[in-house]
Amino acid sequence: MRYQFSQKIDALQPSAIREILKATADPSVISFAAGNPAPEAFPVEAVQKITREILEENPISALQYSVTEGYPPLRDQLTRLVKERYGIGRDFDQVLVVSGAQQGICLAAHCLLDEGDKVVSESPSFIGSLNAFRSFSSQLVGVQMEEDGIDIDRLEQALKENPNAKFIYTIPNFQNPTGITMSLEKRKAVYRLALEYGVLILEDNPYGELRFAGEDIPTIKSMDTEGIVIYCGSFSKVLSPGLRVGYVVAPKEIIAKMTVAKQSSDVHTTILSQMICERFLAAYDFAAHIAGLREIYRKKSALMIREMDGCFSPAVTHTNPQGGLFLWCSLPKGADMPAFCQKAVEQGVAVVPGSAFLTDESGNSDSVRLNFSTPTDEQIKKGIGLLGDLTKKLF
Amino acid sequence: MRYQFSQKIDALQPSAIREILKATADPSVISFAAGNPAPEAFPVEAVQKITREILEENPISALQYSVTEGYPPLRDQLTRLVKERYGIGRDFDQVLVVSGAQQGICLAAHCLLDEGDKVVSESPSFIGSLNAFRSFSSQLVGVQMEEDGIDIDRLEQALKENPNAKFIYTIPNFQNPTGITMSLEKRKAVYRLALEYGVLILEDNPYGELRFAGEDIPTIKSMDTEGIVIYCGSFSKVLSPGLRVGYVVAPKEIIAKMTVAKQSSDVHTTILSQMICERFLAAYDFAAHIAGLREIYRKKSALMIREMDGCFSPAVTHTNPQGGLFLWCSLPKGADMPAFCQKAVEQGVAVVPGSAFLTDESGNSDSVRLNFSTPTDEQIKKGIGLLGDLTKKLF
Repeated sequence: MRYQFSQKIDALQPSAIREILKATADPSVISFAAGNPAPEAFPVEAVQKITREILEENPISALQYSVTEGYPPLRDQLTRLVKERYGIGRDFDQVLVVSGAQQGICLAAHCLLDEGDKVVSESPSFIGSLNAFRSFSSQLVGVQMEEDGIDIDRLEQALKENPNAKFIYTIPNFQNPTGITMSLEKRKAVYRLALEYGVLILEDNPYGELRFAGEDIPTIKSMDTEGIVIYCGSFSKVLSPGLRVGYVVAPKEIIAKMTVAKQSSDVHTTILSQMICERFLAAYDFAAHIAGLREIYRKKSALMIREMDGCFSPAVTHTNPQGGLFLWCSLPKGADMPAFCQKAVEQGVAVVPGSAFLTDESGNSDSVRLNFSTPTDEQIKKGIGLLGDLTKKLF
Repeated sequence: MRYQFSQKIDALQPSAIREILKATADPSVISFAAGNPAPEAFPVEAVQKITREILEENPISALQYSVTEGYPPLRDQLTRLVKERYGIGRDFDQVLVVSGAQQGICLAAHCLLDEGDKVVSESPSFIGSLNAFRSFSSQLVGVQMEEDGIDIDRLEQALKENPNAKFIYTIPNFQNPTGITMSLEKRKAVYRLALEYGVLILEDNPYGELRFAGEDIPTIKSMDTEGIVIYCGSFSKVLSPGLRVGYVVAPKEIIAKMTVAKQSSDVHTTILSQMICERFLAAYDFAAHIAGLREIYRKKSALMIREMDGCFSPAVTHTNPQGGLFLWCSLPKGADMPAFCQKAVEQGVAVVPGSAFLTDESGNSDSVRLNFSTPTDEQIKKGIGLLGDLTKKLF
């Protein structure tokens, strides 16, 4: 039997990252390729206690069907949280609980994109989101990154040249893959341009709480007086990714459409997971927990950068993220990046080729993504040492 | 701001059932409109014990990211289960864990349907699946039901007239909404016709384990020597719908595409839920648990039918399901079914209008769907009594 798949899915490649992760199943390989929270960042005792209480006090609710919009007490907690911590939420906004921010991105794409519509995105950007956009037959328009975020002139150019652009996709904080944070000025400019060109903004902020240096910068959604920003948040980096709980804050009309799409996608998000998140927000000191996470990632990031600066060829540069899980490492211009990644794996170290994150999959990249949250300190020291030897040999 | 949604989602209406369920938020209304498992069907103590053990023995795995394909020990358990209990699984098949069977349906639609492609479906059928197909801009071709399942002559006619049909969608066991079971002869005929006309079969079997009368009939997938059947199963009716765990068994090539689509949809299914399902299968007597569920639904179904036969107008007929959660109640030909539903709600009883389940949303239906799994015995007696008075008054 020859199967005939839909064009939109047939064109999609399996995520290069997930393929590399499979190659790293060999436990002797040190992986800087993942994006997992550090194991020590999970509040294990709290989750054990909360889960026991939920299943003792309210087992039927935890196991029964629930409403698509999300567990109402969690929606209430989130409405409070995003207002208090990020200045988000106007009268016209609503919260939808989703199965991880990835589902929020996918539902937004499903609700907004007709075949051939354009999505304007930072490039490089998160491959999971880019693939979600591709899976609805849209076309990606990539805009280059600068040290302080997306290139605003090129963004305006892209909006001018693509009148059927539906939205701008951005990760303003500690972007995946570059670790770059968008400046306040640029956030204002992105908002102004979106208004001017009549497009929406899809603001993805999974890492925002993981700031370990510098000052918080207001979210674009906090500036959203006109109702043009769809904001995606997540519990994956602050509580647990395995629970698969994220949330979207957007104008009610948009949330209503996303709710209809979610009904036919997975009915509702795992209710036990939602109850765990709700009780964690209600009964624990969230700010103190976050402060602990920041300390973990501050140390891991500093260790990786110290080791890199100590042993990498000076021809190789890297970003200095103020938060998040990743840094972006650029080889000398014109270097054979794929060969570098291949040699690194042969030495027992996995990194992700930068080309995986381009909006144009056939484009070239001189860079690789390194993750500092998943490996242990010992793995960071050893793995960066091996990479350093390789950079000195090659560049 | 006027938002411009994608055509495929803009055309979708919120599920009529979910809207009715909202109307039944009033606790004085007796609801026969839901499709929830009976609360007494949940193995609460087992889930409490299993969950405590998982979070004590293996908390990091339960909270960390996992692979898109599903928790490997659960995939192993499922491979064994579908082989032993349903004769499913050939060398070319694989198992994918999904976030409820609804996601399996949605991923199959995403992977197979280009704009304008046809889906041939039993009509009436499950609205959640019909909406998933609609959300990918496909066109539905409805085929009438008979007492022993889909009308085979009309099915062949539909396949003849629609050469761009991609698959046949069917719920062979205790169909939602009609409660009808497809005979063995018809299952063989559906398989033969699919082969002949070069279309796939999407076999949805969420209720198959809930047989409380008659003999098991082989699944269509068990006949699948040629690799043309995508089979969807679920833990929702046998363990818990709130956990959101289902599974798909299909040829490897199809599973590979669905895995790519799932990556960009929700990355993976809640891992704690998967671990709970796995341990339940591994450590408990699944057959004995199922026997207990069947007893619960046998009694509830019998009670509802006994009460209906005792007090409904003889002009109103109903199916006699051999399993599942629903029965289908037909008013006299030409009766004003929407008015009946409206009057029923005014009397304090909610049922679902049959028109909600038609492939042609503008079509007429004389029927309503009644659910016997969610209400208590007292609610069944009282609610059926009220409906009976109404049928006698009107028909």
